[in-house]
Amino acid sequence: MSFEAMWRDLSPVGRSGISGGYHRQPFAAAEREAMTWFTEQCRARDLRLRMDGNGNAIAWWGDGPGGVLTGSHLDSVIDGGAYDGPLGVVSALAAIDELRDRGVTPGRPIGVGVFCEEEGSRFGIACLGSRLATGSIGPQQAASLHDRDGVALLDAMAAAGLEPDLGPSPLLQDVGTFVELHVEQGRDLVDRDRAVGVASEIWPHGRYRFDFRGEANHAGTTRMEDRRDPMLSYAMTALAANKQARLGGQRATFGRVDVIPNGTNAVPSQVTGWMDARGESEEALAALVGEVERLGTERAGRDGTTLEMTPESVSAAVRFDRDLAARISGVLDGAPVIPTMAGHDAGVLSAAGIPTAMLFVRNPTGVSHSPAEHAEMADCLAGVTALADVLAELAR
Amino acid sequence: MSFEAMWRDLSPVGRSGISGGYHRQPFAAAEREAMTWFTEQCRARDLRLRMDGNGNAIAWWGDGPGGVLTGSHLDSVIDGGAYDGPLGVVSALAAIDELRDRGVTPGRPIGVGVFCEEEGSRFGIACLGSRLATGSIGPQQAASLHDRDGVALLDAMAAAGLEPDLGPSPLLQDVGTFVELHVEQGRDLVDRDRAVGVASEIWPHGRYRFDFRGEANHAGTTRMEDRRDPMLSYAMTALAANKQARLGGQRATFGRVDVIPNGTNAVPSQVTGWMDARGESEEALAALVGEVERLGTERAGRDGTTLEMTPESVSAAVRFDRDLAARISGVLDGAPVIPTMAGHDAGVLSAAGIPTAMLFVRNPTGVSHSPAEHAEMADCLAGVTALADVLAELAR
Repeated sequence: MSFEAMWRDLSPVGRSGISGGYHRQPFAAAEREAMTWFTEQCRARDLRLRMDGNGNAIAWWGDGPGGVLTGSHLDSVIDGGAYDGPLGVVSALAAIDELRDRGVTPGRPIGVGVFCEEEGSRFGIACLGSRLATGSIGPQQAASLHDRDGVALLDAMAAAGLEPDLGPSPLLQDVGTFVELHVEQGRDLVDRDRAVGVASEIWPHGRYRFDFRGEANHAGTTRMEDRRDPMLSYAMTALAANKQARLGGQRATFGRVDVIPNGTNAVPSQVTGWMDARGESEEALAALVGEVERLGTERAGRDGTTLEMTPESVSAAVRFDRDLAARISGVLDGAPVIPTMAGHDAGVLSAAGIPTAMLFVRNPTGVSHSPAEHAEMADCLAGVTALADVLAELAR
Repeated sequence: MSFEAMWRDLSPVGRSGISGGYHRQPFAAAEREAMTWFTEQCRARDLRLRMDGNGNAIAWWGDGPGGVLTGSHLDSVIDGGAYDGPLGVVSALAAIDELRDRGVTPGRPIGVGVFCEEEGSRFGIACLGSRLATGSIGPQQAASLHDRDGVALLDAMAAAGLEPDLGPSPLLQDVGTFVELHVEQGRDLVDRDRAVGVASEIWPHGRYRFDFRGEANHAGTTRMEDRRDPMLSYAMTALAANKQARLGGQRATFGRVDVIPNGTNAVPSQVTGWMDARGESEEALAALVGEVERLGTERAGRDGTTLEMTPESVSAAVRFDRDLAARISGVLDGAPVIPTMAGHDAGVLSAAGIPTAMLFVRNPTGVSHSPAEHAEMADCLAGVTALADVLAELAR
């Protein structure tokens, strides 16, 4: 099946008829359907599929140690785009087809991996599957995670028919190198007029929960001066985060809010906002987060509310293997080597000591995590060819 | 059954074990259980219970036209208090007991009414039951209402075993006067050192939906200057509403927010906030709402987002019958006549031309729409006696 045919085949799975965006939360029906589709594609290619107890999968072409792994993830953010994740998986399958069409016999095994809950959209920790597989998060911590409806990770996995066995994954024992292909989530390649690029580094980033607590009360009868309204403290903090990030050349976003009781005629008792923050260095990130917390606490003091700030996941800066990036750029006619502000499973595997690289495919608008996310078909096909070239070189 | 026994009996229905607050949304299990309890209390007193097709009920002691109606509602805001609504219903039943103990034979029928969805916590329009009964909202508009889960009003009613027949209610044909007893939702009676007061007026008030629309995008990779983030427009508007209300001596609250997609690592595509606003006059309210909309639109322009503002329900000022209030105050040894900022079914019936009064029972903290809402038992019993005195006078 060609890249185009696979892409058409997978595209209805989990797509909202209203927004056109994707809802492939881990272990829910649409994501499981995408995984089943992946399993069938592996079977049709005679790839040897292995699963681990974290929900991750690798399908191997060939046996033995020191394999070259590619692939990405199939889950999406809530109402996300079609490309973030699936482009890397479908391109990996198509690259194997291309290598076979070229008559290449790789000297090392080539694997196609799918890591689960890369987006953290259900259990709140991004790259959960690869973090468990590499041991950067422990099974006990993961087992304590719940989704928004209170469903525990292990129960969600069991409900999906999996037999969870969380922890460091035997799947990675055969991996010598990892190359993840991903749609670009900015416009660097547009500006450089190139279809494909190579990653240099990932900015350090994290998710931080801000719990503002006040006092529930009647919205009509409570005098303005008698209120302890956490919505005000939250609103001021969201604006402050934006301003601090702009001033410092960093990134900060409040994109998720939960309000208790969330009633029109009640002053809330609690407002929880989650801040996504990214900095060009770990020092810059810590300074940004610290300043937003300080400003939020100051405002809470004036509102008669309290602020409790909890980092939920923080990822250190990742500097991908420089020699590997240079070698890949060479194979790809001097493809540009560029940084990204987005976290990826490639960052987790790199941090765990596996020589890792990433390929980016041009995104004409730079928009991602949105139904409007897009890549031109010609660029996707250029990505498949580039990935085939890179795999041929690395698996020689 | 005494007031205290009835209060104990009703108190576990719909109470959260975590917060101690009440979750009695209309037509859901807890509110239905409270209605069943009411039905049983009416049967035990040989009151003649009549229902209408809007979910309202009146139980009559005696027959004929020109009846004196009392009562209130049994639904709650989300995580609300025990007193707002039920105090008026339980006090009404206890007042009938007290009149019978006194050997009073009323010259006119006395009714105990329960109006449904007074809080608007499920279908978004406060006093829905009394508005339908008086014709101030039409059956078609009501039939188009849906709750947050997309359940239509008629389906919710049918699921609760009701046979909906929305529209002006025959129940009100026999009502000559309405007196609603309610816990005070401010501290006016505390300041005046009185257990019971009489309402003079209700401030005009309304609910206004603010839809801010922007563009979903990746929270990490999207440059701050490339964003169209509706969370910022919302946050600024919530702060502006608070400031304008404070400056003008009015009330404005953003207590409910819905975010799409509400993901930590996505710039939202849409943020919807609901503003509850109250003003000392209709002009003051209109000026407040207009100014908040203007400031929100201005900020949206700077954020690259849009604002669409929709009034969901607006209640004009209600001036209760002056002669009736004076007569009741006289019966109650000069009980103070005080305004309120909270909407009530009494306001809807008054606007429909039914001579209407309200009694307030002291609230030591003024807190309402909150698990912390409270009234002392002695004050509740004083309220029952006051209500019995008023009913005896009005039904002579």
